[in-house]
Amino acid sequence: MPLSDAGEITGRLNSALSGLAEFRTAGRPGWTREVFSESYRDSRQWVAGQMKAAGLEVHKDAAGNLVGRLAGRNPAAKPLVTGSHTDTVDGGGRFDGVVGVLGALEAVQMLRESGAALERDLLVVDFLGEESNPFGLSCLGSRALAGELTAADLARTDYSGKTLAAAYSDFGVDPSALLSFKGWTGSRRPHAYLELHIEQGSTLEARGMPIGIVTAITGIERLVASFTGTPDHAGTRPMDDRRDAMVAAAEAVLAIRSEGCGAPEHGVATVTRLENASRSPNVVPSLVRLYGEVRSVDESWLSGTRGRLAAEIAARAAEHDVEADLSWSTDNTVVRASDSVQDLAGDAASAAGIGWLPVPSGATHDAVHMAALAPMGMIFIPSAGGKSHCPEEFTSTDQIATGVRVLADTLVRLDSHKFSTTPHTTQRSTL
Amino acid sequence: MPLSDAGEITGRLNSALSGLAEFRTAGRPGWTREVFSESYRDSRQWVAGQMKAAGLEVHKDAAGNLVGRLAGRNPAAKPLVTGSHTDTVDGGGRFDGVVGVLGALEAVQMLRESGAALERDLLVVDFLGEESNPFGLSCLGSRALAGELTAADLARTDYSGKTLAAAYSDFGVDPSALLSFKGWTGSRRPHAYLELHIEQGSTLEARGMPIGIVTAITGIERLVASFTGTPDHAGTRPMDDRRDAMVAAAEAVLAIRSEGCGAPEHGVATVTRLENASRSPNVVPSLVRLYGEVRSVDESWLSGTRGRLAAEIAARAAEHDVEADLSWSTDNTVVRASDSVQDLAGDAASAAGIGWLPVPSGATHDAVHMAALAPMGMIFIPSAGGKSHCPEEFTSTDQIATGVRVLADTLVRLDSHKFSTTPHTTQRSTL
Repeated sequence: MPLSDAGEITGRLNSALSGLAEFRTAGRPGWTREVFSESYRDSRQWVAGQMKAAGLEVHKDAAGNLVGRLAGRNPAAKPLVTGSHTDTVDGGGRFDGVVGVLGALEAVQMLRESGAALERDLLVVDFLGEESNPFGLSCLGSRALAGELTAADLARTDYSGKTLAAAYSDFGVDPSALLSFKGWTGSRRPHAYLELHIEQGSTLEARGMPIGIVTAITGIERLVASFTGTPDHAGTRPMDDRRDAMVAAAEAVLAIRSEGCGAPEHGVATVTRLENASRSPNVVPSLVRLYGEVRSVDESWLSGTRGRLAAEIAARAAEHDVEADLSWSTDNTVVRASDSVQDLAGDAASAAGIGWLPVPSGATHDAVHMAALAPMGMIFIPSAGGKSHCPEEFTSTDQIATGVRVLADTLVRLDSHKFSTTPHTTQRSTL
Repeated sequence: MPLSDAGEITGRLNSALSGLAEFRTAGRPGWTREVFSESYRDSRQWVAGQMKAAGLEVHKDAAGNLVGRLAGRNPAAKPLVTGSHTDTVDGGGRFDGVVGVLGALEAVQMLRESGAALERDLLVVDFLGEESNPFGLSCLGSRALAGELTAADLARTDYSGKTLAAAYSDFGVDPSALLSFKGWTGSRRPHAYLELHIEQGSTLEARGMPIGIVTAITGIERLVASFTGTPDHAGTRPMDDRRDAMVAAAEAVLAIRSEGCGAPEHGVATVTRLENASRSPNVVPSLVRLYGEVRSVDESWLSGTRGRLAAEIAARAAEHDVEADLSWSTDNTVVRASDSVQDLAGDAASAAGIGWLPVPSGATHDAVHMAALAPMGMIFIPSAGGKSHCPEEFTSTDQIATGVRVLADTLVRLDSHKFSTTPHTTQRSTL
């Protein structure tokens, strides 16, 4: 594919990244552009402008997604879809999500320069609100496109009691139209979905690899465990006659870490928070709540963690005469990337002499929901120090440009690829 | 000592306990009568009335203590002092502190019935605010009597920013008069101090013993430990590349428990709270704060805990590449009860055929501060199930009556006892 001069590409990427970075919420750390916020609203006007400047027809769909269309030669063919998101977490950085949207616009530029018009429409999507939010529902835009947003979801409330429906409405998205919007289900399914994203981990950097081709997106099992003991006086109750909920919770923290350390392939287990009911400085803790999660792309291991941890945590709690009550919920099941998309992306990288590595994704993405609609793939580029969701998040413009080249060439290959004729069904496994 | 009929004694105690229990803060659990509250103010009017009804001369001193005087034959002799407190913790019970004040009034009744007037004045004191409060300073009244309340203490503030001085002032105690009040220091030191109290532990009940004679009051070392790691993405950071502050804190919880379990004699070690800075559900905890305490009546063991725990906690944190920063403060040093007072109390119990056990006190008391002024002793009575600082706190009226008999007879023995001529110095050890 004929390309601009490398300096031109990185110059355009730098300029686009800087332009978007101007939009951030005053008084918050890093680059804060949370869904439904004023800075996010303003930034998407700017993104729509960038899409138009790249020669795309732009519209906002009923779910609040920004969709830019590059017309293909055959309007009847199923479209190719690429994109990501431009919202950030509180105190977030400049690259998570952003490189998948602005990188896609640069890919459009490369395709135009190559002179080879695509058979299919190419849709570049800036999905609404991918990051977690106070309503406890991430990936709002891609979820709606996959037909997975429900009336119950719209009734979710934030800390102040405001409903998600009201937040949509204030943001200019009609909640009733949203519910009747069928997204891209039925006959409107895309030909394929491909997303460029920063790794948010340290594997590519550690291995010196410019490109990761995602094999699967992690499943997530969330745990809330309550430990109940007896609130005795911390000065007078002998050690051997205590029912100390904090000790049982500490044992669980270490058991959960051990479980993660024993994972084959990609597996992690984390306790993110302990809460105790009493603030008294002289009472043996009697009620401690533990919040944790276990992730893996290995369904068999992940499905076993509930049972293994339930047994281990209960046994350790029983040694301290503490009751442990575990409540699990599946946040995401494992979603496998399409083998064909992985193969084509690998071919594209190899053809350009770019090294790549098959990698799991430990974070979730809009691609999880898009996988319900079409063969899905993701291209990862390195994150400096593996840092993400913080102001220090960094990927160089050269690294982004390399990702964009692989993205553009993979889209060309996907354009003419014939997937097996079996109708696409979701790649998600059920645990 | 001639006594009322047992039924009369328990009847009077029941009536007094029920009378005081009427005073509690509406809308709070249990018997809530916190220092400076309206219910506490009202209750002390009632206590003053009970003192007067018992034939005592009553005055409120400059530190807000209620003092009832039973005149002895020799007004020049140093007085005997007994008492405790009538404030409670939020959600507290009906016996902690209360039995030492109402029990002392019943002891006065017994002494009167015995016909044997004491040589010395007997002062029954209801000490102001013994329990912990939002100003972080317990034993307000006894602390002031011992000359240990400072101008810096009066400048302490509660959560709302109100000073302790302002709280005193609103409660009718003049803070400037309080600072110039020298308490009972200098030549005004008592002959001896003896306090009746519930055990707040389970030893007496477990051993079937009606009386405990306190050997020493626990020292308390308080610990605040901060664990600092790196806030990585919980989904993408591999287990072997984490700096998880929660894991290091959990290791510390177990190390602190082990330290307590290894104590000789009475020793306990408790983590009462863990706090983590981030509420995010998908971030490896990077800052966790641990609040704990270690108590013992064994100075040598207690003084060694700082070093042992510092080494153990740092070593375990280092295994997880986490920094541990420990900050210790001595809340109380170990205070030994007077050997003579212990002996006389034991004689009094034995003479009445009442079984007793030497016991440590794992909780602190007004007696800690009174020990700076005079030979000190405490008489414990059983706590059902060892429960205290909760509505379930319970000691039967029969058990209280037994404690009052030992209290009264010990006061008679103390009245004529000659302590060694060495001027009294504080029994507190310095760690």
